[in-house]
Amino acid sequence: MPDFADASTDKLASIFAPRSVAVVGATRVPGTVPFDIFSNILKDDFQGTIYPVSPSAKSIAGVKAYKYVLDIPDPVDLAVIVFPSSVVKLALEQCGQKGIKSLVIISAGFREVGGAGVQREDEILQIARKYGMSFIGPNCLGVINTDPAVHLNASFARRMPAEGAIGFLSQSGALCTAVLDYAHAKNIGFSKFVSFGNKADISDIDLMLSLKDDPATRVILMYLEELTQGAAFVDAARRIIHEAGKPVLVLKSGRTTQGASAAASHTGSLAASDEIVDAALRQAGVIRCQTIEEMFNNAIALTYQPLPRGRRVAIITNAGGPGVLTTDAAVHERLELAQFSDATRDLFKRSLPVTANIKNPVDVIGDARADRYRVAMSAALEDNNVDGALVILTPQSMTDIETIAEEVCNVASAHSKPTYTSFMGETDVASGIAILQRRNIPHYILPESMCRAFARAHDFSVEQARRLTPAPTYTDVDTAAARAVLDGAVDLARGYLSPSDAMKVLEAYRLPVLRTGVARSPRDASAIAAQVGFPVAMKVESEDVVHKFDVGAVLLGIDSPASATAAYETIVANVRRHQPEARIDGVFIQQMAGPGEEVILGVKRDPAFGPVVMFGLGGIFVEIFKDVAFRIAPIPVEHVRAMMQEVKAFPMLTGARGRPHRDIAALEECLLRLSQLALDCPQIQELDINPLIVRDQGSGCAVADARILTASPQRSM
Amino acid sequence: MPDFADASTDKLASIFAPRSVAVVGATRVPGTVPFDIFSNILKDDFQGTIYPVSPSAKSIAGVKAYKYVLDIPDPVDLAVIVFPSSVVKLALEQCGQKGIKSLVIISAGFREVGGAGVQREDEILQIARKYGMSFIGPNCLGVINTDPAVHLNASFARRMPAEGAIGFLSQSGALCTAVLDYAHAKNIGFSKFVSFGNKADISDIDLMLSLKDDPATRVILMYLEELTQGAAFVDAARRIIHEAGKPVLVLKSGRTTQGASAAASHTGSLAASDEIVDAALRQAGVIRCQTIEEMFNNAIALTYQPLPRGRRVAIITNAGGPGVLTTDAAVHERLELAQFSDATRDLFKRSLPVTANIKNPVDVIGDARADRYRVAMSAALEDNNVDGALVILTPQSMTDIETIAEEVCNVASAHSKPTYTSFMGETDVASGIAILQRRNIPHYILPESMCRAFARAHDFSVEQARRLTPAPTYTDVDTAAARAVLDGAVDLARGYLSPSDAMKVLEAYRLPVLRTGVARSPRDASAIAAQVGFPVAMKVESEDVVHKFDVGAVLLGIDSPASATAAYETIVANVRRHQPEARIDGVFIQQMAGPGEEVILGVKRDPAFGPVVMFGLGGIFVEIFKDVAFRIAPIPVEHVRAMMQEVKAFPMLTGARGRPHRDIAALEECLLRLSQLALDCPQIQELDINPLIVRDQGSGCAVADARILTASPQRSM
Repeated sequence: MPDFADASTDKLASIFAPRSVAVVGATRVPGTVPFDIFSNILKDDFQGTIYPVSPSAKSIAGVKAYKYVLDIPDPVDLAVIVFPSSVVKLALEQCGQKGIKSLVIISAGFREVGGAGVQREDEILQIARKYGMSFIGPNCLGVINTDPAVHLNASFARRMPAEGAIGFLSQSGALCTAVLDYAHAKNIGFSKFVSFGNKADISDIDLMLSLKDDPATRVILMYLEELTQGAAFVDAARRIIHEAGKPVLVLKSGRTTQGASAAASHTGSLAASDEIVDAALRQAGVIRCQTIEEMFNNAIALTYQPLPRGRRVAIITNAGGPGVLTTDAAVHERLELAQFSDATRDLFKRSLPVTANIKNPVDVIGDARADRYRVAMSAALEDNNVDGALVILTPQSMTDIETIAEEVCNVASAHSKPTYTSFMGETDVASGIAILQRRNIPHYILPESMCRAFARAHDFSVEQARRLTPAPTYTDVDTAAARAVLDGAVDLARGYLSPSDAMKVLEAYRLPVLRTGVARSPRDASAIAAQVGFPVAMKVESEDVVHKFDVGAVLLGIDSPASATAAYETIVANVRRHQPEARIDGVFIQQMAGPGEEVILGVKRDPAFGPVVMFGLGGIFVEIFKDVAFRIAPIPVEHVRAMMQEVKAFPMLTGARGRPHRDIAALEECLLRLSQLALDCPQIQELDINPLIVRDQGSGCAVADARILTASPQRSM
Repeated sequence: MPDFADASTDKLASIFAPRSVAVVGATRVPGTVPFDIFSNILKDDFQGTIYPVSPSAKSIAGVKAYKYVLDIPDPVDLAVIVFPSSVVKLALEQCGQKGIKSLVIISAGFREVGGAGVQREDEILQIARKYGMSFIGPNCLGVINTDPAVHLNASFARRMPAEGAIGFLSQSGALCTAVLDYAHAKNIGFSKFVSFGNKADISDIDLMLSLKDDPATRVILMYLEELTQGAAFVDAARRIIHEAGKPVLVLKSGRTTQGASAAASHTGSLAASDEIVDAALRQAGVIRCQTIEEMFNNAIALTYQPLPRGRRVAIITNAGGPGVLTTDAAVHERLELAQFSDATRDLFKRSLPVTANIKNPVDVIGDARADRYRVAMSAALEDNNVDGALVILTPQSMTDIETIAEEVCNVASAHSKPTYTSFMGETDVASGIAILQRRNIPHYILPESMCRAFARAHDFSVEQARRLTPAPTYTDVDTAAARAVLDGAVDLARGYLSPSDAMKVLEAYRLPVLRTGVARSPRDASAIAAQVGFPVAMKVESEDVVHKFDVGAVLLGIDSPASATAAYETIVANVRRHQPEARIDGVFIQQMAGPGEEVILGVKRDPAFGPVVMFGLGGIFVEIFKDVAFRIAPIPVEHVRAMMQEVKAFPMLTGARGRPHRDIAALEECLLRLSQLALDCPQIQELDINPLIVRDQGSGCAVADARILTASPQRSM
């Protein structure tokens, strides 16, 4: 028995490995949660002592019951609360008096029902704080630890899973029941299995970090419906991946607006937009999955097989058609079909029938028995050009399915490269699949899932080995100046800075703003235009005119002092005609950027993730193609490059089809400075540089226009 | 016993429903194809008479054998040939002498092995022609007919499938074994099941058309590795869908270049590019699937349930998490979450617990039993705002899985709207799933597959109801003139028409070419430019200069007679400098198109599909985003519109973000005229109009440049 509960200050230790458990609110009625949980702990061979607490029963399932938790004569490490929500408060008080430090609160009827439930949740949190107690839940299925020394099933799941190396954390309790059933059928085991419900106290992040240090857990799987502490999540995931080398797989629902709204009505919380979640998970190195099945398909590969060192796969099949389908799927996942060495080809020629296809996919032909699979697999796995084997079997009349399954396992175990399998069909191949599963060779019903799992495992091996360069901290910036401008503007009704103020903020962070000035009269205009340098752009300086182009308040390409004077008059006349009530503070004059490609940089402060940085190419690319990329600030340098390359139109900046090469290094610096600005100045709610002109290589960039929305008290979250 | 073989001239009748079958080449060795096929026909209760033909055996599996097919004393409707490929020729001769008209040739070793195999296949085809015989194969698994009056398993599959309404046709024999196993486990039955192998005689198209008229078949599934008769396939599929109202589902492998090359090495044939296949299948109304599982997921919905009349689904679940996942999946498939009527909401309020979520997804809560599912499903299906029900179950401790399954079936059967289900998990829910499958309620392991199947079924109901307007035939065209220009150019070495010839061809089809002329001298240039109307574009007239822009042989915006003279001299000088050897025939002068959006129209003659028409927006949209759409000529009018709308940048032509509305009607006419031109003139191998300028609404289009590649004998296929 591990002595977690004695020694560790980790609040999760006595939840996962208690020596004694009280089930507070247990009943004698089978088929109800309060009975089922007690019964599960008892029947699933908990290695410590269990005490039912029941206001009325003398004993439950043969075990002496106590009226109050305070009546239990021995120390209690963990209390599992199954009382109705109205009574939970009282039960917690008594647990506190008893000196219990850890709880799992199964009961529902808290934040998720809104109204009084929110208040009830606040109250139990206060009681827990008062007594120094930690708890999982409320509104959850419970906690499972398969460690034979503990063997705790403190949940109302129908079954205790087998021991294994996967840690599973779920925001949905009901989904857990489906997952446990699915995993049972696929012979998948777990180390820890936690339904964390409303996570009022112990959070998903606490749990994932505890699995980081759990020697029994090699792979972490999470089902999430919201990411309220986005930045902390990204940080925790990166630590798990890089410090512990454990993959983190996430199924995040609420991808669509309607799904998010369904999640909100179900969890009572608001979700970040899915494109931001997606960017954050990518930045964290998390493997995002779209279905439960995909999550486990990827997990078994990561848990049981060596990581692929490259993308070059050998496909071995006893049927041409499935070989073609697998090739399609592999290429779709950007895997490569290995080119066999001459030696391998010679060996195939000598050992396989003449009708066999010895190119990749290797077709060992419909009448292949185990010996041919052995020869083909061994030769492929020993070839230096091969990073892994994908083995396909169709149940033809001569196929000795079980012998082949055993042989595939034997060959796979003898090599340090991964082998994945797909025995196609269902009933006839079932005995073969059972052998593969028992011997921990990943099996997939669909070759497509097999290829996807291989690709994700390879992605992880690359991610794990990657050492990211942290975003640099530019020291030539003037944070005080930027903040002064922003603070001076916080009281603005609409929250937007004036164009010249916006430019001042960017200038303080050495973003390449163009030379500017504000003219107060037509005559002023000609002098200032000459100062900033022709050609110039001119636009009205007015807080009241938001869509300046639409009212003719912007004029471009003004190339002489006389034109500047005329332009001033035109702009003022246009504004007067369209918006007679608008206050005009003058006309803003700016040097024109010169030739280059227009891009858009943006920042939006997300309640969960903090400042999110956006990049895209100007105009229609953002408008029509939604061709943009996001990252969470601060952005490691490699991710600045990755986010630029994610944008499909990016080749327009790097010489595609005879276009000039633009100044990518300068663009990269702009993104990094912008990200630093957003982190330094929480007053910035939204910021758009649109457009930033990226000039030719070595000639830098120019901020042509920018808008900054400040966080006024009404809008702050 | 149906008397197909007597009355019908259909060559497939006596293959699917023979009264007597000879297995030619049968042996006494179990575990070999020649024995297994004989044994399958015998043991799987064939309702006619079976005769083994064996050079050596007296009897096989207890049935008297004949040395030669000619020795059989009775008439034989069908011969199944299982001899090695070298002997097949001889066997066919004897079958011909015996008067057998129908054969299934199982034997491999023909076209698929190349070389001598190709010749062997030609020889057997000639023998078949000589005797008026038809055959399926060679190189196939065989033919199955589950009709109880016939019950023929003339295949070496491990099992005879159950009777059902799905017709399955496969180019891969081995894949059939996996499919039969999969279908058995899912309780899916078939009407006909055919592995057609090399289709040397009876083709996939013959087979699909025979299933069109087969009353036992309601849904047609096909696995294809190539589409060599693409146009005929599209036509057959459209007839099946529109005349017989049967959906056609296709899994076409070789999607990727590598997959296609694997398919080629496996079937010995070349594939059309996948984007063309994809466009053709869409045009045909075929439901294209990416995996075997997806094909059956869609098929069970189409086979067993009423077609959805709309996209509005009601999700009913006993767990919030899966409800969110299903909502995401539904929205991803562009389904809509139904808005319940007030009456339905009231009913939910009255009948479901207060904790239930009565918005869509309807959460009947974890402790729901069958009664709550019944109430929720019935109310939802009776609501006029609902087109179908998606029912989710997770196996929670209180869930009475089997009773719920029965109740779901009862409610579903009582309504004319479709119900699909997903009982999540595997072992615990197995008994419930078995009930659903037995009662023909589609069940899906993943909510995602369920939503996709619903969306495909709805697509089919729309497709089936759609009456397409055939492409108009323009009578104002001058086919003879176009052909004359093309034929006059067929001998050109490089195959490209001169610019002026290309324009003549387009002009003959009344495509809106700009006014042009060819100047032979600088002085000529000023006169001709004045004639076509300023501003003009000028480019060199030379067969030798292909990339005219690159060598400075194109000048634009020439707006006076003097500039035209100068431009002539500049162009000639530029060409002389870059390509001194080029023959210069003068300078081509063209009226400029004026303002508009640039689009690209193209035609490419595909060996399988004939002329394929391409549409995209000019420049980077095609180059970087590959934002193009294809259709096979002739294009029904609705598909001309659909192909334009498939292009993501299309909103740029229809007023997106304040842009002008362009002349879409004129663009549509250009696509239709181009398609007619390509059909009328097989000499056109490739044709690109790049760009076509689409002017503002009502102002038409203008062909600014075009290239035509003619089919010279060397390039023809």
